[in-house]
Amino acid sequence: MKAKVHVMLKKGVLDPQGEAVRHALGALGFSGVEGVRVGKEIELELAESDPARAEEMVREMCEKLLANTVIETYRVEIEP
Amino acid sequence: MKAKVHVMLKKGVLDPQGEAVRHALGALGFSGVEGVRVGKEIELELAESDPARAEEMVREMCEKLLANTVIETYRVEIEP
Repeated sequence: MKAKVHVMLKKGVLDPQGEAVRHALGALGFSGVEGVRVGKEIELELAESDPARAEEMVREMCEKLLANTVIETYRVEIEP
Repeated sequence: MKAKVHVMLKKGVLDPQGEAVRHALGALGFSGVEGVRVGKEIELELAESDPARAEEMVREMCEKLLANTVIETYRVEIEP
């Protein structure tokens, strides 16, 4: 079973990487880029075949390792 | 208008970051994690209001800056 985790910085947390990308896009001639936020997308291949149990396990992985919940939010997607 | 770009390593390209996450998950007691791939998710806030033009612009950004198309694939999502 496949799972996807989307990790983004919380609103209000400064994103220097995103700012750097925004500046670089401007320097390349792209105008009208008002904001850029860079997050992570983590694809997991799991042996677990029950979607509910898989989601619970992935949420625990996020809390323990994949996301820093002080400054990041995460979203879990289970793919059938 | 908002756009999201998903950048992942191409199949067959080694992902040391994903491997490190897989090992760390195993060390934390999560069993049955068969594979982990780590990619980027980039959220863009654009002044452009036409979805077709926005998508074209974001694809150009990917080709020029956001993705390394030698080793990475990207997917563009335009949010209304």
